[in-house]
Amino acid sequence: MGDPGGIGAEVVVQALADRSVRRLARWRVLGLGSSMLEAAQSVGIEPDWWRVPSESAVIDTTAKHDVTLVDYERTGGRGSHPREASKRGGELSFRFVEDAIAETKRPAGDALRADAIVTGPICKEAWALAGRGKYPGHTELLATRYGVKRHGMMFVCERMRVILATAHVPLMEVRNALTIGRVFDAIDLGHEACVRLGIPRPRIAVCGLNPHAGEGGLLGDEEERIIAPAIRVAEQHGMDARGPFPGDTIFREAMPGPSGRGARYDLVVAMYHDQGLIPVKLLYRDEAVNVTVGLPTVRTSPDHGTAFDIAGRGVADAGSMKSAMRLAAAMAATATPGSA
Amino acid sequence: MGDPGGIGAEVVVQALADRSVRRLARWRVLGLGSSMLEAAQSVGIEPDWWRVPSESAVIDTTAKHDVTLVDYERTGGRGSHPREASKRGGELSFRFVEDAIAETKRPAGDALRADAIVTGPICKEAWALAGRGKYPGHTELLATRYGVKRHGMMFVCERMRVILATAHVPLMEVRNALTIGRVFDAIDLGHEACVRLGIPRPRIAVCGLNPHAGEGGLLGDEEERIIAPAIRVAEQHGMDARGPFPGDTIFREAMPGPSGRGARYDLVVAMYHDQGLIPVKLLYRDEAVNVTVGLPTVRTSPDHGTAFDIAGRGVADAGSMKSAMRLAAAMAATATPGSA
Repeated sequence: MGDPGGIGAEVVVQALADRSVRRLARWRVLGLGSSMLEAAQSVGIEPDWWRVPSESAVIDTTAKHDVTLVDYERTGGRGSHPREASKRGGELSFRFVEDAIAETKRPAGDALRADAIVTGPICKEAWALAGRGKYPGHTELLATRYGVKRHGMMFVCERMRVILATAHVPLMEVRNALTIGRVFDAIDLGHEACVRLGIPRPRIAVCGLNPHAGEGGLLGDEEERIIAPAIRVAEQHGMDARGPFPGDTIFREAMPGPSGRGARYDLVVAMYHDQGLIPVKLLYRDEAVNVTVGLPTVRTSPDHGTAFDIAGRGVADAGSMKSAMRLAAAMAATATPGSA
Repeated sequence: MGDPGGIGAEVVVQALADRSVRRLARWRVLGLGSSMLEAAQSVGIEPDWWRVPSESAVIDTTAKHDVTLVDYERTGGRGSHPREASKRGGELSFRFVEDAIAETKRPAGDALRADAIVTGPICKEAWALAGRGKYPGHTELLATRYGVKRHGMMFVCERMRVILATAHVPLMEVRNALTIGRVFDAIDLGHEACVRLGIPRPRIAVCGLNPHAGEGGLLGDEEERIIAPAIRVAEQHGMDARGPFPGDTIFREAMPGPSGRGARYDLVVAMYHDQGLIPVKLLYRDEAVNVTVGLPTVRTSPDHGTAFDIAGRGVADAGSMKSAMRLAAAMAATATPGSA
């Protein structure tokens, strides 16, 4: 459900009221009954879910219902939640994710085992207030809990895919984060995800870091020192990776024309957060899905934040949450048996 | 004309063949007769300009013609020019700009004095080969020649304007380049340019540097340390400047809806090259104009490079060059008398 003060509950309620989403899986919402009811009211939707309190050890009735709400009301969720970063909001939203991870770790064959996680928007400042500041976001928490070193943050839109080589680090610390291995991993993980998404031989464009991709070394050397070598390694592994290309022009090449045809690349590898996210949010704000690649489970997330400023008013757009839920269901269906 | 190997000649020829552009001013092209003729042929346009050799001390016939070509054929331009970075291409394109600057410095009242400069695309690598590597681009050369410390690189599209606080520096050196004064100058110069463009009280959005604009200090401190203080100074000067906003979402706010209405800002101040240029090139590739603000003359430029890969084939789009020429004519007309 994400942070109780944000728009998480609203977009979850709206997405689950869409029959084309609801029928794709059996959904389990880890959240607060009060927030969900309030959200349902704010968007004018009749609540329609099976509620179980989170403190119940066994939720074996879940399998019978298409939507189950696991309610944390009596385990820390009681009362009202401010529309801003709060310690309690951080504690709750962190716990929702922790418990969701545990559901994916149930033994194979367990009827309650989760095949995918869709995360609602959390507030990183709230996580910090709750003493969880060492995780700048969901991705890092998931990677730690699954013990995964190679992982990546990828954005999937209807016709454009972007993966980040670095994500939630201060921009000036990209200097320390960007290595040949890091760039190669982004290419490799993005390649793998594209294959899973049904693109057998993805055409991959890799961005430079500097203005004009370093302009032949005049405006920085990371292209020659780090990015080009990583591309060569990817080529040696048989991938169709090209670049480094200037960040300010490559996205146009990866963007399909009005007809949906004409994109020259299936995936763009961006070197840092804003380089990849500016085009994604500009072109596909309400439909982009954030996918964590490299985990032993499927994880998707809508590509927006808590939006505290509009939360509770019933005006949040559930498009991205719906896309995230659809993609999670689709990827869980194609996941290698036993890998999740 | 820009680099003789690039698409400069092609787009200049095409733009000057458009009567709606041609009639706006008396144009003087500093370039090569051979390149211009070749370009005219490649785009199927009848050459129609008055040619004078550059070595002529006085070009007093210029005033009678709407387009004059100042031909450097006999002063270093003879022969063919490769479609790639070359020392000679760098020398020539550098000289075209130097001489254009000199034309704007003629005494007030001189009939030959230029009121504005429109620059064709140059190749920075070629400038470096020509021993001019200390100037990473036109902007820096112009600033030096006019002895201007406060200047900025701004991009004007039909309905969106972006100014950069830093431009042609390696991304990891933005650390040293970004100061309160630098950010304030960008806000201030952008504000001034908007006023000159007919927006009396521009609404200005300032980007953060880090992911999520630093997420309250968790992902970097430049927002609190540098950007917010610069915004406060701008406010104290009576400007309507807001932020810092996350780079990945603010451009959507500054982008008008399909009807052309609904943009919440008139100007976005970006902290570095790609942050500002990714949205500009994605949304307005063929119509964005680069404007150097803070100079005692008007200077505009199309927002594309030499495009060596397609040069000479007659397929280059002259849209941005036409927009650059139109904007130069319009800004020269509103320039304060005596300031240029």
